[in-house]
Formats: sequence, C-alpha cells, structure tokens
Amino acid sequence: MSLTLAEHADTIVAIATAPGMGAIAVIRLSGSEAIAITDRLFKGKELAFQLSHTLHFGTIRDGDTLVDEVVVSLYKAPRSFTGEEVVEISCHGSVLIQQQIVALCVREGARLAKPGEFTQRAFLNGKMDLTQAEAVADLIASESSAAQQAAIKQLKGGFSNDLKALREELIRFSALIELELDFATEDVEFADRSQFYSLIAELRQTSGQLLNSFTLGNVIKNGVSVAIIGKPNAGKSTLLNALLNEERAIVSEIAGTTRDTIEETLNINGVLFRLIDTAGIREHTSDVIESIGVERSLEKMRQADVVVYLFDASSDMKDVEGEVAKLDQENLNYLLVGNKADMLNIEALRHLHVQQDHMLLISAKEKANIEDVKQMLYHKVMGGEIKNESTIVTNARHHAALVEVVKSLDDIKSGMDHNLPGDLLALDIRRCLLYLGEITGEVTTEDKLDYIFSKFCIGK
Amino acid sequence: MSLTLAEHADTIVAIATAPGMGAIAVIRLSGSEAIAITDRLFKGKELAFQLSHTLHFGTIRDGDTLVDEVVVSLYKAPRSFTGEEVVEISCHGSVLIQQQIVALCVREGARLAKPGEFTQRAFLNGKMDLTQAEAVADLIASESSAAQQAAIKQLKGGFSNDLKALREELIRFSALIELELDFATEDVEFADRSQFYSLIAELRQTSGQLLNSFTLGNVIKNGVSVAIIGKPNAGKSTLLNALLNEERAIVSEIAGTTRDTIEETLNINGVLFRLIDTAGIREHTSDVIESIGVERSLEKMRQADVVVYLFDASSDMKDVEGEVAKLDQENLNYLLVGNKADMLNIEALRHLHVQQDHMLLISAKEKANIEDVKQMLYHKVMGGEIKNESTIVTNARHHAALVEVVKSLDDIKSGMDHNLPGDLLALDIRRCLLYLGEITGEVTTEDKLDYIFSKFCIGK
Repeated sequence: MSLTLAEHADTIVAIATAPGMGAIAVIRLSGSEAIAITDRLFKGKELAFQLSHTLHFGTIRDGDTLVDEVVVSLYKAPRSFTGEEVVEISCHGSVLIQQQIVALCVREGARLAKPGEFTQRAFLNGKMDLTQAEAVADLIASESSAAQQAAIKQLKGGFSNDLKALREELIRFSALIELELDFATEDVEFADRSQFYSLIAELRQTSGQLLNSFTLGNVIKNGVSVAIIGKPNAGKSTLLNALLNEERAIVSEIAGTTRDTIEETLNINGVLFRLIDTAGIREHTSDVIESIGVERSLEKMRQADVVVYLFDASSDMKDVEGEVAKLDQENLNYLLVGNKADMLNIEALRHLHVQQDHMLLISAKEKANIEDVKQMLYHKVMGGEIKNESTIVTNARHHAALVEVVKSLDDIKSGMDHNLPGDLLALDIRRCLLYLGEITGEVTTEDKLDYIFSKFCIGK
Repeated sequence: MSLTLAEHADTIVAIATAPGMGAIAVIRLSGSEAIAITDRLFKGKELAFQLSHTLHFGTIRDGDTLVDEVVVSLYKAPRSFTGEEVVEISCHGSVLIQQQIVALCVREGARLAKPGEFTQRAFLNGKMDLTQAEAVADLIASESSAAQQAAIKQLKGGFSNDLKALREELIRFSALIELELDFATEDVEFADRSQFYSLIAELRQTSGQLLNSFTLGNVIKNGVSVAIIGKPNAGKSTLLNALLNEERAIVSEIAGTTRDTIEETLNINGVLFRLIDTAGIREHTSDVIESIGVERSLEKMRQADVVVYLFDASSDMKDVEGEVAKLDQENLNYLLVGNKADMLNIEALRHLHVQQDHMLLISAKEKANIEDVKQMLYHKVMGGEIKNESTIVTNARHHAALVEVVKSLDDIKSGMDHNLPGDLLALDIRRCLLYLGEITGEVTTEDKLDYIFSKFCIGK
C-alpha cells in the first residue's frame, strides 16, 4: 500500500457538522499539529498539557479580536478516530463563525481536508479496514433502518471478518501449492487435491452467497424501485395515495432528493421503497403491456425491482391473463393486484388462471388490504425477514471484486479438473487473493483509495 | 421572577447541530436525568461514575440493536452551559440516526426541548443574564463580522455591565428618597438635590447614548439597506455589478435568504449592506424623484438607511439640483453619485450647486472610484470606524426598554424641577429601575421569557 507521507503528515481541518446554521457546529482538526494550531487560537488553558478525552471551555481569538466562546474536545494519538492528534472545536453555529475558525486554523498551518480524508487517515493508520471505512460513509447516508443496520454491521467488521476467514484459508492453500513448486522436479504433492476440492467448493459457496446478497444489499442501501402499471381506470392513483397515506410524514421528510425519476418513497418494515411514476404509459395507451414495447418504458420497468400490475377486478379481467403472460415473457418480478374488490366480479375471477401467490385482491378506495400489498412487496424483495446474523454486501465496489473472486475460484476448480500445473494454479490463487484483499484494503493503490474516499462528505 | 419548577426539573433533548446530513451531528441533553437517561442507552462505560468534562467512546443501543457508534461528552452540574447535568452525544450525521437517538432519549424519559430552552435554563440557573442569553441567539444568526463582534461583546457582558452600573446608581438614589418618605413629617432631605440633578443628568446621558447606538446596532445586526435610484440611462445596473464584483463569493453565499425585497448583499468593512432593487421606479417613469410620490416606492426609500442617487455626469445634470432638493425635502440620508466621469461635462458640473461631501464622481463602466462609493456608504452609516470599546445596542427589546428608561429619567428630572413630593418621585424611579431590570432579566415575567426564547433555534 502506497501513501504520500507528506500529505499524511500535515494537519487537516474541516467543518464536521451539517452545512448551515445550527445551535452549535463542530470543526475538526487531525494531524501532528492539531493541538499546537488550536493552542495558538484558543485562550483558556494550554491544551498541550491537558489529558486525552477531555473538554475545555475557552475562547477563540484572532489577535485581540474575540471570535467565539467554544468548547474544545481533545483526543491524543493514537486514541482518536484517525489515530492522530484530533481536536474538535464546538462553536456557536453561525455560518460566519464556522468559516472564520476554519480560516484561522488554515492561517495557523492546517490544510482544508479533502472529502473523506479523516476516515482515509483512520484507514491508513490501521484504525479500521477499508470495508469499515466505507461503512462510515454508508452510515451517514443511510435513509432507512435496514440500510443503517447493514452499514453498522459492516462498521463493526461483520463483513470483513467473513472475508478475512475466506482469505486465510486460501493463503494456507496457496502456501502449500507454492511449496510444491519448490520441489517441482521431485513431483511431490503437499496439497491433498481432494481436500482442496472441498475447500474450493466451500470458498465458492461462501463468496457466492456474499455475491448473491448484493441484490438484497443494493435494495437495502438504495431502496427498492417499484413500478406501478395498469390501465387508466384501474385505480392506480388511488392505490398510490392509499399506500402513501400512513407514511406521509416520512415522504415529506425525504422529498426533493431525486425528483426527476422518483415519484414518492415509502418505508415498509424499515426498508425504503421508491414508487416510480409510470403515468406516461398510463396516459398514452390503454394496452399497458403493449406499451412496454416503447423502449423507454421497457427500460424503466426492467430496471424496477418489482412491477405492480393493477387491474380492475370488477370488470376488465379478460385481458389480464394475456398481459400476465407478457410480464412472464419479460421475466419481470411482478405482483398482480386486483382492485375494486368491493365490487368483485366473482364469475370472471373464477375463470382467471394466474398463480395465486402472485395475486392480491384489494379495494384502494376503501383502503382494504393495502397493508397486504405492502407486506407482499416487502416479501417479494426481502424474501421474508432480514436475518440479523447474515452478512449482506451493499457496496458496488465489493460486488465487483467478489465477481472476480468467484471467477478466479471457478478458474482454480477448472484448472484442478484439467490437472493444470501448480504454477498456473498459483496464478489463479494469487488473483483470487488480490481481489479479496482489495475489498478489505489489504491490497490497494493510492489512486483507488483517493477515488473511494472522494465520494465521502467533507469533514468525515 | 417566576418559573415553573416542574418544567425546569425535567430533562430536555434536542439536535444541536444544523439540520440535515453531516459527517457528525450532536444531540444535547440537559437536566437532572441527562446522565441516567444516556447511561440506559450507552454501552461503553457507566457514565454516572465518570468525571465532568470528559469524552467517552461507545455505542448507542436500542435493546439488542446497535444504533450507532458515538462519543459522549459529559458536563456535570453546575459546570455546564445550562448549569445542569449536560450530555452531548456526537453521532454519525445521518438524519435517520439523529432522529433515532432523540427518539430513544424521549423513550427513556427526556422531553423534546423548546426553542432556546437550553439557553433559557442557563439564564434561569444564573449562568448568564438576559442580554447575554439574547447575545447567544444573535451570535448564531450573525451574518457579518460587525454583527458577530456586537453579539460576542454582549455575550461577554459588555452591555449588561453598563446597565448594571446605571442601575446601582439609581438604586442608591432611590433608597435615599424612600428614606426621606419614612421621615416625611420631619421634612428632612437625605438626598442632596443638586447631587441628584447631576446624577440624573449623567444617567440620562449614558442611557441616551445607548439608545442612540441602536440605529447603528440595528444596521450592524440586520444590515444597511441601500436604495439605488436614478434615471434609466444613468448606469444603475452597471454600478450594481461594479459594487458586487469584488464580493461575489459572499453574495452567492447568503443568497436566497429574503429574496422578495432584497436584491443583493454586499459586505463593506465587515458590515452587511443590502442593495434594494428600485427597478420598478426606474422603469416606469423618467423623473425619479417624482416617482417617489408613488406611495409604495416612497415607503421603500424612506425605509432605506441610505439612498444612492445616481446621475449621468456627462449629460443630464440639469435636473440634478431639483431632485436633490426633493431628497432634502424628504429628509433622506443620501449620497449623490455622478456616473460616466470618463466623459465628464466639466462645464455643466461647474454650475452644479450641491454639497461636495455628499457627492462622488465615478465611472461604473471603467470601475473607477467604485471603492470610494463603498467607503462613503460605510461612513454615511457608521460615521467612521466602529469603536471597539463602545457599547452598541442591537436588540429591539432592549431599545424599547431604553426608550422607557429615558422617558422615566426625564420625568424624574421634570418632577425635581417642579418640586414634586418624594413619593411621586419614587414612583418614577421605580419605573426606571423596572425597565432597566427588564433588559438584564433581573425583573421579568415568565410569559416575557417564553416569548424571548421562542425566537431562538431549537437545540440552543
């Protein structure tokens, strides 16, 4: 792992709290000069002589000018978030004061921190591995309790632990294979091939499970996209309103985040669902599934994690089977919802041949069975409860690396099947170890690190 | 001073940092149960046994569920901002986590804090007087360094000290007068009337100065409103652009605050100037001053702290004198600016009879003398440098009370002039003491306090 020592040695500063005016704001410094820089601005006690993990009331001064009354938190290396000397200045939350204190710190020798640079230093100083560092960013951005739980589990090392166990087994495997190479002329086999087969199979299964958990992990992190489609008079809007009714507060709370494609968000059992507007489809054609042929709409529905197909159970059921067939053909994850169950056409329904576990009868207008729709949506995606003990991959970077891990494991197995020589086998094993190490940051490059941390917010 | 003990005794909680997502956020608790409540949620150390002014790393848990990794700051009564037990929980800055921790604190017995309630408690517990408490809110809202300096001086007690000195003198005076009343039948005079005259004169001068400082204090706190008027081709827009050019960063920074009436803001020597759009006037009539007759525009200009009258010094000076006369008639604080000085009509200018210290020649297009316009605006309002040692009243409530103080002092003097009996004099003195005490909070009612603190932000 390479790191620029010059960069790493200097002291960084940033506002750590949310931008704007608040009762208080926190300015964070990290680096060997953090305490010395603060001491030059702070009047109260000499911070250099104070203990770690203590709080000190005093004033920040620019020469004779009093800037603010503050409380300074001291964390001495290595007992800090970054592992370096860390000072947090808690000031009054005026935007002006925040900026002035940061400017004074810079004047006294600190440098403005880059996004994620505090966490990057924590990683570089061995306070956490890369998946834990990434969990910090996920935790800050978490919008649902499921996303938060996945992030905090990752922060506590749950994900890394699984990977580290995998990697250790593989290193042991690798060592034996490499040992064989040293004795190549003597044609010995230190590594028992049948044991290896079962080891690789086990590794393949574990990494495969992690890989598969990404589908779940992705929806936990980014929310589940739901496209509700249906004919104009099916009651789509009424269903949307009924679904949102009980969660309106949460809707208004996170409104305006990505308005262009997302219509409304809904929290079901702590998981965020994004209800996507397909009004365009609804308004321009009466044959819903046919309109899927329009490329843009097709893409939208294919991208959706779940499609809710709403039909009027009191009348227009004659097309339902045909449209379900088209949904099947498109291989979509869909839920059939028959609306207007209060005016049900029993006879027509009896002749409807669709799988019962894909179908629900509701009355959007009477708000009957709306909760069932929510729970069915949840189960469609989550497949029952999120198991608290299972490890879930939520990060696209981890997913990409795991794809390579699985590929190299398959190559190893195939190589063994074909009795490939040990040196070629060793290459595949090294490749597998490389990608595993990349996830936890044991093997990485500076560029890659900079890219990962650049997506963090400033001050973290 | 009355206070509801039940309210005062419970423990309050609020998010203290700016709303929204940040690297970290701070949740603040204050009250006798603050530490006990946190201990029920915090896993790490038992906080009840820790020292004041210490920091503790650990986790917040909701039963078995890990909510976040946090750092807890402990302040034990009375060594805290409020004078009570205070805990600050520094968590990851996800909005969800902030809300969860507040909700958990409420579940464990805390109550959501009302706006300004932390500072209100600091006042009720004698940690600061009322002017200092109000300075906290002003400091948080300060948008310019002058406003910040006025607030921090008030926070350090500069303003209160002046008032307390005044009040003590008056109490001494009052005591002697009241003593005379006890001996009313004997017709003695404990209070030497000539000494009293000079004392009242001194008091009147000091409170009068504080009262006068409000004009300055108000512009420091709220900014100086500047209405730029002039004929369509005078170069108003060019001047506006020239004035803003060097301060564009600060303009964009505080944009969108009160867009309806304010066009652009400009920071001159640390004081905020609000340049008010008079485009309406400009566009609808060519005789600028006549357009003042339009009631809405007249109001706008009268409300402005300064009017900049811009004219074209290369041509249309013939109307200038007449319009200046109208500005004088309206009793406006104005600055005459002759634009297009690069194409100056020297002959016409020679015949122009206006006061030279009210006039400047510039070229907005060439950006010549623009800095002079700024400095002239500053001096028009601030009357030179803000003296660092002078006390400035910035608060409308203080101003209103000071008006009553001055009134009662004038009544006392008039009463003495007319040899009013001591008991009537004592009434006026008590009235004066009442209003003085109201400012520092030594005399106040619960309703008044609630109103004052309700204008604070939550979490402070």
